[in-house]
Amino acid sequence: MIRAGIFGATGYTGYELVKLLQRHPQVDVVFATSQSFAGQKLSDVYPQAPHLPLILGEDAPLDAVDVVFLCLPHAAAAETAVTALTAGVTVIDLSADFRLKDANTYASWYDKTHPAPHLLAEAVYGLTEFTRAQLTGARLVATPGCYPTSILLPLRPLLTSNLPITGPIIADAKSGISGAGRTPKQNTHFVEAHNNFSPYKIGRSHRHLPEIEQVMGWFRQDTPPLIFSPHLLPVERGILSTIYVNFVERVTLEEIRPYFTAMYANEPFICLLPDGELATLAHVTRTNRCAIGLTLAGNTLVITSAIDNLVKGAAGQAVQNMNVVFGIEETTGLTV
Amino acid sequence: MIRAGIFGATGYTGYELVKLLQRHPQVDVVFATSQSFAGQKLSDVYPQAPHLPLILGEDAPLDAVDVVFLCLPHAAAAETAVTALTAGVTVIDLSADFRLKDANTYASWYDKTHPAPHLLAEAVYGLTEFTRAQLTGARLVATPGCYPTSILLPLRPLLTSNLPITGPIIADAKSGISGAGRTPKQNTHFVEAHNNFSPYKIGRSHRHLPEIEQVMGWFRQDTPPLIFSPHLLPVERGILSTIYVNFVERVTLEEIRPYFTAMYANEPFICLLPDGELATLAHVTRTNRCAIGLTLAGNTLVITSAIDNLVKGAAGQAVQNMNVVFGIEETTGLTV
Amino acid sequence: MIRAGIFGATGYTGYELVKLLQRHPQVDVVFATSQSFAGQKLSDVYPQAPHLPLILGEDAPLDAVDVVFLCLPHAAAAETAVTALTAGVTVIDLSADFRLKDANTYASWYDKTHPAPHLLAEAVYGLTEFTRAQLTGARLVATPGCYPTSILLPLRPLLTSNLPITGPIIADAKSGISGAGRTPKQNTHFVEAHNNFSPYKIGRSHRHLPEIEQVMGWFRQDTPPLIFSPHLLPVERGILSTIYVNFVERVTLEEIRPYFTAMYANEPFICLLPDGELATLAHVTRTNRCAIGLTLAGNTLVITSAIDNLVKGAAGQAVQNMNVVFGIEETTGLTV
Amino acid sequence: MIRAGIFGATGYTGYELVKLLQRHPQVDVVFATSQSFAGQKLSDVYPQAPHLPLILGEDAPLDAVDVVFLCLPHAAAAETAVTALTAGVTVIDLSADFRLKDANTYASWYDKTHPAPHLLAEAVYGLTEFTRAQLTGARLVATPGCYPTSILLPLRPLLTSNLPITGPIIADAKSGISGAGRTPKQNTHFVEAHNNFSPYKIGRSHRHLPEIEQVMGWFRQDTPPLIFSPHLLPVERGILSTIYVNFVERVTLEEIRPYFTAMYANEPFICLLPDGELATLAHVTRTNRCAIGLTLAGNTLVITSAIDNLVKGAAGQAVQNMNVVFGIEETTGLTV
Repeated sequence: MIRAGIFGATGYTGYELVKLLQRHPQVDVVFATSQSFAGQKLSDVYPQAPHLPLILGEDAPLDAVDVVFLCLPHAAAAETAVTALTAGVTVIDLSADFRLKDANTYASWYDKTHPAPHLLAEAVYGLTEFTRAQLTGARLVATPGCYPTSILLPLRPLLTSNLPITGPIIADAKSGISGAGRTPKQNTHFVEAHNNFSPYKIGRSHRHLPEIEQVMGWFRQDTPPLIFSPHLLPVERGILSTIYVNFVERVTLEEIRPYFTAMYANEPFICLLPDGELATLAHVTRTNRCAIGLTLAGNTLVITSAIDNLVKGAAGQAVQNMNVVFGIEETTGLTV
Repeated sequence: MIRAGIFGATGYTGYELVKLLQRHPQVDVVFATSQSFAGQKLSDVYPQAPHLPLILGEDAPLDAVDVVFLCLPHAAAAETAVTALTAGVTVIDLSADFRLKDANTYASWYDKTHPAPHLLAEAVYGLTEFTRAQLTGARLVATPGCYPTSILLPLRPLLTSNLPITGPIIADAKSGISGAGRTPKQNTHFVEAHNNFSPYKIGRSHRHLPEIEQVMGWFRQDTPPLIFSPHLLPVERGILSTIYVNFVERVTLEEIRPYFTAMYANEPFICLLPDGELATLAHVTRTNRCAIGLTLAGNTLVITSAIDNLVKGAAGQAVQNMNVVFGIEETTGLTV
Repeated sequence: MIRAGIFGATGYTGYELVKLLQRHPQVDVVFATSQSFAGQKLSDVYPQAPHLPLILGEDAPLDAVDVVFLCLPHAAAAETAVTALTAGVTVIDLSADFRLKDANTYASWYDKTHPAPHLLAEAVYGLTEFTRAQLTGARLVATPGCYPTSILLPLRPLLTSNLPITGPIIADAKSGISGAGRTPKQNTHFVEAHNNFSPYKIGRSHRHLPEIEQVMGWFRQDTPPLIFSPHLLPVERGILSTIYVNFVERVTLEEIRPYFTAMYANEPFICLLPDGELATLAHVTRTNRCAIGLTLAGNTLVITSAIDNLVKGAAGQAVQNMNVVFGIEETTGLTV
Repeated sequence: MIRAGIFGATGYTGYELVKLLQRHPQVDVVFATSQSFAGQKLSDVYPQAPHLPLILGEDAPLDAVDVVFLCLPHAAAAETAVTALTAGVTVIDLSADFRLKDANTYASWYDKTHPAPHLLAEAVYGLTEFTRAQLTGARLVATPGCYPTSILLPLRPLLTSNLPITGPIIADAKSGISGAGRTPKQNTHFVEAHNNFSPYKIGRSHRHLPEIEQVMGWFRQDTPPLIFSPHLLPVERGILSTIYVNFVERVTLEEIRPYFTAMYANEPFICLLPDGELATLAHVTRTNRCAIGLTLAGNTLVITSAIDNLVKGAAGQAVQNMNVVFGIEETTGLTV
């Protein structure tokens, strides 16, 4: 049994992770931390949750676990990672701290000096389908952002192909409101959100943009720039990204689809939809899937890509990463 | 033209009132206050709102208005009422401060010593259909709570009848989330509320209980006790109260209905539904109506009563009261 | 392994059942029928569903299964039950056909002559917590209605107690829209339902009333009449019933609670909430639980009772019944 | 007073139109038709509606009206238009029948031979801000589609400018579910839609595509192709279109914005948002506004454009057109 600790168990991502780990047949949850609810139980915060005691992060018994999951604010996550690694514990970070490889880029997007730049090179970017080899036995995993997961998975087959893409690539993304976190804010108030739909940080201003472009750069030199437009969607969970990729010349779906099939046909969590079927949230909510639909319109490929932001976009992918790190069957504890 | 000022214009009730008054053909909105947004405009808070400047309450030019509407927290409202009355301005209060006639009852339910107990006797309880005569020319009006409005309107014909009611009377009420106010809280977070439905302060513990029972007592001696169960409903606006009244002996709808008709047939805002039709939120949202349906089941009358909590339950009724106070046509500026 | 067939797999209840049975470690789903979608796969109807072939009911291989679940319209269910029983297959019916013990009562509420009145005596009413002994080895199980489950579970400890109840008992119930079935109707249209809340068939006119009163009668002679008011709630799933029980004289929670504890403390699916905590949908959605909260107000006990209408109110309880019938651990395959 | 008749008053567009016309100070609603509800009243269909009698279309007294509004299915609208024009009545059509100027294009997109091709040249495309001159005194007006309105309004200043646009132009549009009409369908069932978000007919397959491209062609020769992706959004009303326009070379917002200001600064219904503010549904629901936000990202202009699909996208714009046709103040009866 893998002994696991969860830092930050009371946010939406942390709670989703607790639920997944409690059902995981090869994991024991040893502790869960919460700075706000320490001394209470997780069931005091969520009525369906188990009666898991919540402790302060500084009281976490690192010597009793094999792995910790960090569902902490950025910067706090990196500091905890240092402590955990020093104690010999594997770290699966769900914050943004180890996603960007460059400390200066991090500083400019996250308004903080990186607390542990020496670890950036070692951290494995845990978009599992991309980095399995490096994940095996890794000490430090950076679980990708939710939007990046939904956008990078369908872009990779195109970027690694020789298809003649011309930019910009446009990703028009819509996220359920759990993506905004559990802390009540005006824009997550039911009355403001329920009959509304609103774009935010569109163009080139959202923090997930440099993360996506960094990974795009791994797959093709001179990748076109990304225009990324997130929107707040009045549902609890799920991300749908509608992605537009232009080709220099006419290409057919018959030419495009094999790149996707070759890369994903055997991937348990990638659901390539047949011609004419579009990805929707209903394909993926409460699963670790990414559903991908392909539509060609003139010289433009319109990709619909759907994930559950809390599962494949966060806690599920973290568990998938843990499975690979510890060498157990990758789908264990996850809904295919 | 009636010159009006609004204290507390940025809450849901205040904004609803601004919208109603701006459309009212006999009102000029002279000022609007906000402690949090003073210096900004109302359009900075709500994207559809007019560019109304927001000022601090203490800067409000009381000498420039005939009437003020108080959409303030309790206690703060009473203090502002004293100032406004001293300045010779009519006060229409939408807080709870002048609803209860007894300062001790107020203190025990609202955890504050009443700031102006000497005004309690003068304040007119502005459930307009009940107190028109006293409202005409009144200086100080206490606009009722939203739940009390939805419950008292259908109860009055029964209480003033000689029908043999036996207690307790049960009011199972469901309110849209705007009733919880604009300040973000955990239970109004979209993710917590959207797929949920939750009772709160049920039985005899909600602050509207003493208000309802006080008014019930005006209509019948030895009224039965009220059991009042509010629930939080995942819609933006609207209250549906399902009310159960037991009779000592069998009574027919033919005997009951005339009491309602006699009292309400000519009321412009009371919509008595025909036999077999039940009140729903769809009957009333964005109107100043109260829809009432009557269903007899054995010796129990089941009343369905619907209002829009922000209109007939708050801002609309406040305008209706203003119309009566100033002697203009009662329906002016309101949706019948 | 128990070999199971599902009749009517494409409705909301049928699909919920497929999901539960596919995860059940001791069940093989052998066939699934659909009159509308025969020839297609369940994944053509629900994007997350397995690729389960759908066949016509008349083509179902009854000789290949040990048990069938009937998620069929009433009357059709009884006819299929006869066929299945004749073939020696255990029947777990989720329709209303075998819930009422009296064929005349059935005829008057369901507008049909009962197709198999000779089976009514044998059919076991499968509110599992009530009838475990009879369920073991039963050939024919009538899974209760969703509203009756939410109302009868908390009423039983009161009815079997010697507490001095006086009538009527009032059950004000609110159900998510999946309870109205998958066939599109005007009142389930998103635009009609989303910002609405509406009572329907209130008082003594809903088909679940005779079912509830029948079972109440098993527990106490001269039970008070029930007033039952269902409402359509704009959420996908879940029922919250707020139930009002009056006592002839003052009773304390300390006197009441032991009756609940004695009956339910060891029940895996009954979640008795501590004093002051009220049941909400959030306690139960996607679980087989019934959460029960008790609040005393004067001489009235206000019970809040929540279930997931598709799980404990239908498919989950059907699986729970199957577990008991076949002598396997009752919680197998279900979320406690 | 303008005497008006409404064909097809019980759909969402028809009912919205009734509400607008009943409040319009210079219109008398003389009749309203419904093939499904003839003989009943509009209040039998919508609980807040006026008690307007519904008659069969063939019984409509065309001699008693000055103008008719057609909220009918395509083809049926054209046939009624012929009859009304013959009777000397002005026609404001809200269907698709007179939007496309070419009968062959119509036939290929709407699967019908156009019933009245001789009227296509005369029909004025009523995107009011574009065609005011032709609308004055027109006999036949084609009110644009909802998506085209939201997309064409912000595109026009760019297309008539000399800014160096390079294609394709991408319009990623999200519509509330009232856009799918009142007839219940599987995809508008509350349970299917409420927690879902789904693209449909994306790329170059939706019927509004040829309409948009036709009008784009009026403003610039060699317009780039449009990629148009509609999505079904779980709200009642509102369309947000996120539109991506690429420039051949870097252009600044300071160069772009004057084209918008010049065209729209004095338009009462066009709300140009300041730099940094993005259009949301909250800007426009229940108004006749179009809110437009401009964001530059590299060489791409990201436009956010919001309307209420039932108002500026249908009934409101129809009334705006009527006002112009009859020479009355354009904003009469509409919410600016």
